[in-house]
Amino acid sequence: MIKLLSQLTHVEIYATDLEESVRYYTDIVGLRVLERDADKVYLRAWGDYYPYSVVLVPGEASGMVSMAWRTTSPEALDEAVRRIEQSGYTGEWREPGARLGKSYVFTGPYGHTMQLFWEVEKYKAPAELASQYPDRPEKRSSHGLAPRHLDHVTIATRDVVGFCEYYRDVLGFRLMAYAGLPDTPVTFFGVLTTNEKSHDLGVLLDGSDVPGRIHHYAFWVDTHEDLKRSADLLLENGTRIEYGPGMHGIGEQDFLYFREASGLRIEVNSGGYRNYVPDWEPYRWSGAEGCDDFYRNVTLPQSMLEAFPPAPQPTATEQGLVPGTEDELIVRGALHTPDAVGSQH
Amino acid sequence: MIKLLSQLTHVEIYATDLEESVRYYTDIVGLRVLERDADKVYLRAWGDYYPYSVVLVPGEASGMVSMAWRTTSPEALDEAVRRIEQSGYTGEWREPGARLGKSYVFTGPYGHTMQLFWEVEKYKAPAELASQYPDRPEKRSSHGLAPRHLDHVTIATRDVVGFCEYYRDVLGFRLMAYAGLPDTPVTFFGVLTTNEKSHDLGVLLDGSDVPGRIHHYAFWVDTHEDLKRSADLLLENGTRIEYGPGMHGIGEQDFLYFREASGLRIEVNSGGYRNYVPDWEPYRWSGAEGCDDFYRNVTLPQSMLEAFPPAPQPTATEQGLVPGTEDELIVRGALHTPDAVGSQH
Amino acid sequence: MIKLLSQLTHVEIYATDLEESVRYYTDIVGLRVLERDADKVYLRAWGDYYPYSVVLVPGEASGMVSMAWRTTSPEALDEAVRRIEQSGYTGEWREPGARLGKSYVFTGPYGHTMQLFWEVEKYKAPAELASQYPDRPEKRSSHGLAPRHLDHVTIATRDVVGFCEYYRDVLGFRLMAYAGLPDTPVTFFGVLTTNEKSHDLGVLLDGSDVPGRIHHYAFWVDTHEDLKRSADLLLENGTRIEYGPGMHGIGEQDFLYFREASGLRIEVNSGGYRNYVPDWEPYRWSGAEGCDDFYRNVTLPQSMLEAFPPAPQPTATEQGLVPGTEDELIVRGALHTPDAVGSQH
Amino acid sequence: MIKLLSQLTHVEIYATDLEESVRYYTDIVGLRVLERDADKVYLRAWGDYYPYSVVLVPGEASGMVSMAWRTTSPEALDEAVRRIEQSGYTGEWREPGARLGKSYVFTGPYGHTMQLFWEVEKYKAPAELASQYPDRPEKRSSHGLAPRHLDHVTIATRDVVGFCEYYRDVLGFRLMAYAGLPDTPVTFFGVLTTNEKSHDLGVLLDGSDVPGRIHHYAFWVDTHEDLKRSADLLLENGTRIEYGPGMHGIGEQDFLYFREASGLRIEVNSGGYRNYVPDWEPYRWSGAEGCDDFYRNVTLPQSMLEAFPPAPQPTATEQGLVPGTEDELIVRGALHTPDAVGSQH
Repeated sequence: MIKLLSQLTHVEIYATDLEESVRYYTDIVGLRVLERDADKVYLRAWGDYYPYSVVLVPGEASGMVSMAWRTTSPEALDEAVRRIEQSGYTGEWREPGARLGKSYVFTGPYGHTMQLFWEVEKYKAPAELASQYPDRPEKRSSHGLAPRHLDHVTIATRDVVGFCEYYRDVLGFRLMAYAGLPDTPVTFFGVLTTNEKSHDLGVLLDGSDVPGRIHHYAFWVDTHEDLKRSADLLLENGTRIEYGPGMHGIGEQDFLYFREASGLRIEVNSGGYRNYVPDWEPYRWSGAEGCDDFYRNVTLPQSMLEAFPPAPQPTATEQGLVPGTEDELIVRGALHTPDAVGSQH
Repeated sequence: MIKLLSQLTHVEIYATDLEESVRYYTDIVGLRVLERDADKVYLRAWGDYYPYSVVLVPGEASGMVSMAWRTTSPEALDEAVRRIEQSGYTGEWREPGARLGKSYVFTGPYGHTMQLFWEVEKYKAPAELASQYPDRPEKRSSHGLAPRHLDHVTIATRDVVGFCEYYRDVLGFRLMAYAGLPDTPVTFFGVLTTNEKSHDLGVLLDGSDVPGRIHHYAFWVDTHEDLKRSADLLLENGTRIEYGPGMHGIGEQDFLYFREASGLRIEVNSGGYRNYVPDWEPYRWSGAEGCDDFYRNVTLPQSMLEAFPPAPQPTATEQGLVPGTEDELIVRGALHTPDAVGSQH
Repeated sequence: MIKLLSQLTHVEIYATDLEESVRYYTDIVGLRVLERDADKVYLRAWGDYYPYSVVLVPGEASGMVSMAWRTTSPEALDEAVRRIEQSGYTGEWREPGARLGKSYVFTGPYGHTMQLFWEVEKYKAPAELASQYPDRPEKRSSHGLAPRHLDHVTIATRDVVGFCEYYRDVLGFRLMAYAGLPDTPVTFFGVLTTNEKSHDLGVLLDGSDVPGRIHHYAFWVDTHEDLKRSADLLLENGTRIEYGPGMHGIGEQDFLYFREASGLRIEVNSGGYRNYVPDWEPYRWSGAEGCDDFYRNVTLPQSMLEAFPPAPQPTATEQGLVPGTEDELIVRGALHTPDAVGSQH
Repeated sequence: MIKLLSQLTHVEIYATDLEESVRYYTDIVGLRVLERDADKVYLRAWGDYYPYSVVLVPGEASGMVSMAWRTTSPEALDEAVRRIEQSGYTGEWREPGARLGKSYVFTGPYGHTMQLFWEVEKYKAPAELASQYPDRPEKRSSHGLAPRHLDHVTIATRDVVGFCEYYRDVLGFRLMAYAGLPDTPVTFFGVLTTNEKSHDLGVLLDGSDVPGRIHHYAFWVDTHEDLKRSADLLLENGTRIEYGPGMHGIGEQDFLYFREASGLRIEVNSGGYRNYVPDWEPYRWSGAEGCDDFYRNVTLPQSMLEAFPPAPQPTATEQGLVPGTEDELIVRGALHTPDAVGSQH
């Protein structure tokens, strides 16, 4: 294991109605607009150590433009680029801007775009938002869900194992768990992490041919009670809870899912194990073992099969395949050719 | 035990700067102004079933005008009045107004004024504030501490036992616990209740001769995590926490105390036992048994000796007497003559 | 409203394998055997103020023998008996025993047996189990789920409204909520209470003709985190979670359900509103409003249709009727003839 | 930043009465004896991923033998040893044993002994203790405090800055915060971390000349409610709470402190921020800013000045210096000569 990335710092996503999205993220979710430029709006949660964690850009359909990761050092950035290019992919260096230094932007083998950088401003709150606590980037918000910070992104791909192995090998993620269909080669879920939790990068099997799809991204709240309060406030203010509150078996993380103004799925996440084992060996869970639902008694709603941008084919779910979608997804899963990517497994 | 009162419904308190108090209660505490009339402002918490729970009236010094209790029935109101007058005190009937039917207002033997009533409007939220849940009076607030409802009042009196016995005998409160100095007749704290918790009416020994003083009143939040969040938000927005978060031994209730805009002490309260024993016999705790501090390792700050309106003499605290105040308070305590009040004990 | 009952004190239930039940209740649930006599085992939770809350008696099938309620006074016991007999039902006085004074045992109009009493020992722990806290009946248990005390019973009956009105009118319960099918006369759920929560007596529509069935009974834990811990411990020790953790819309109570050694359903319950409105008017919820599932996105498992003793016909659920059972249950619901029971509505 | 250590795995401590310590750690704390050899007892918490986290060895006085850290890779172990020896200290390689591979044991500049290793067995529970969850090393315990795993060690040293800089530079800890006396060069507290929390290695100013003292070590529980339950169970079973429950400003971690059978201080810890900033710059807090007490209203008890093995001179506290100890500790603090240790700052 070599640790090249320190953390997920922000996601850039499409807003089908920019002003409505800004209203939703500020009024309901409880983020704050840091600043806007010609075509982007930069939003932050009160506990983000860097200037922003969500960037909205106008788009035709909901989906992810890119996810951004800070490396662990300047050298780690160079090493990451070296490894990416050695793996056969080429990105491009982007000039400093938007409070970041120069960054490297590339699209990986399954169509997801990542921005990697080392230099970044640390967020410094203006006086009226300054916390009483020297180590807090901003005073705790009391508005809306008031998540503390960004937590993770879960993408959809036609090859879960291939995706996981590529990012493990090239960028040094720990691979924490798989979930698969028993007695088949079909792996429908995988989790990668740069930190102590099971994932800051989740991976779901995608039945479509659309590259680079996102299934959801997640904010962190400090406690399970905050998560219950989030659910209550969402319902009271007109947002349906798509799934949860519940608890995942993988990672023991509390969750709830809902849709934001453009229809993209957001998770609120809390709790979870703290796992520091550098040579952790990923277990391949079955749905029956509670990989998605720790309590093993809840059925995922069909709508959880949707990823973004929308496509006619379903994804798998963190719980397995939905009846009627197996054939399609098993075919996808069977197409998995990890050899093209990594060789040491 | 006959249960005449169903619950504490509201407190009327003085505001030394009315507009500043309104701002504080709405911005920081997270109440909402229901309405104002010539000289009063009526505020409510989102979970109050009746129209308002705090009434602000301009005054020279912080303090309590009155506390209001709804009876369990129209007959209970009549019976309460009969008992009060039989005990030698006389109040007066007040005409319907402020969303209440006729009410009886009297000042009891230790100078505290109570308003008793049966008829009252049940709160009905306007459409934009209506909850998704038919049994909630209003949608959950996400602003400020957002307490759910009023919880209790704790008064100060020169005779704790006399006060407790009077209200037990005349209005049917359950007397749940005392706290006193070991090996002395000095009782410095007592708790009365109309419900399942240890108190909606607390009673502290007062070293002053000022009648009718209040020590604090309390709001309820649903969970201990809400209480921690309240403490965090208070500090982040410039209000010092006078004492807590902690947990009382008596009643097992989580607490924190702070001062509102006029300097009056407010508690945020949660948790606690659920006790339905109709013939509960009050135990007389000592401070060392953790009556105030369940964990038995915290020292109350001296400022907790202050009651309202201010007076040069201290009160006792829920934990006992503060060094240097014993003589004064023990003399007070020794003056206790319960026989003048009730006869069956 | 006249309040005759102070609380539910214990349930007596059948154990199909007595020793296995004792093991389950002590090892898994975390109760303690207070004592045994010729054919009964008396169990208590650490926070029960009275000597025991669950009585096991050998039986052929799981089910409830009786539920026991303490009155608010000796006079209330007499008044309760007077009202029961006036309503056309006759019970019998039982001699003092099992740490109770004389009690009145009767079977009401829908076949459920209640034991009413005033005199009872208050529990006094032996020295090795005595709490550090004078007002706790026993030291907090650290074993198993360690619920604090008994919370409620939910029965099944072929006439929800009839049952609710009878117990409201005769024993003075507050009737807090109904749930019914929209646009039909079918009411499938109702809640009665003697306290501040939505129910200590729940009422579900029963499709069978078996009188006196029970759907589940519930223990209380202090916090939602205790409830999550309960679920975790149950799963870790081999008990499936039938339904939950979740949160009811009616009463805002956190729940989970599982089956004990004889197959009877047990709930672990926490949270909830605190409602003291003496003239509360029960709203009739629909399933879609979240009466059972606050978050409105979970489907009850079919097994929740089972009540005890088992019968071929289903009950309704707290969420409504399960597809395929409507006709049967609607016929039952349509048979409701409240006039035979109470006249003032 | 180079990350050489993956985590703290175990502490080896003295037990003045070995059997009594074993009883205390199993009955009260809720650890489990993994195994014993000639003179050591190996204990584990249910969530430890490695075989054990506490090792008891008979001793004359309470204190720490050593703390053990797993590296991030075999190469990191070699690199750590290279750096230690380059810094002028020499340890020795220990043969494989006690479920570890070969390890390097050295005593650093302030007298604390560390054991570093890469190879270690991963814990595999026997069938009767196996969790339902593939990624849990053992089923959740329901006995005693049942902490999930070891969390951190806080040592005492006569030179806080020197200690922090040495371990930052040589072993790659992140240095997260200092606390010091305003307007003096005295730094009384510092925190080092290998993970997302503020510390797995805390550093307190020591007024004694005894090298290698420990102030406390800490277990992790998943939630603040678990921590409150821990406090309750400790008190109910006869262990005084020395300090807390409370919350630190540095790291926002919930805490409570008590003493185990040999008098050594143990902390129960939960909550806290998640901080992944690789180039975090440590802020130097003052006590008034709430470094120790987030709520800024609690006074540390004098007993918190004691470290182990006992010495007549006090330590500082995480809150600052206790009145009367300043001169002694300021002299110590003034002796700090960081230049002797690291040169690049």
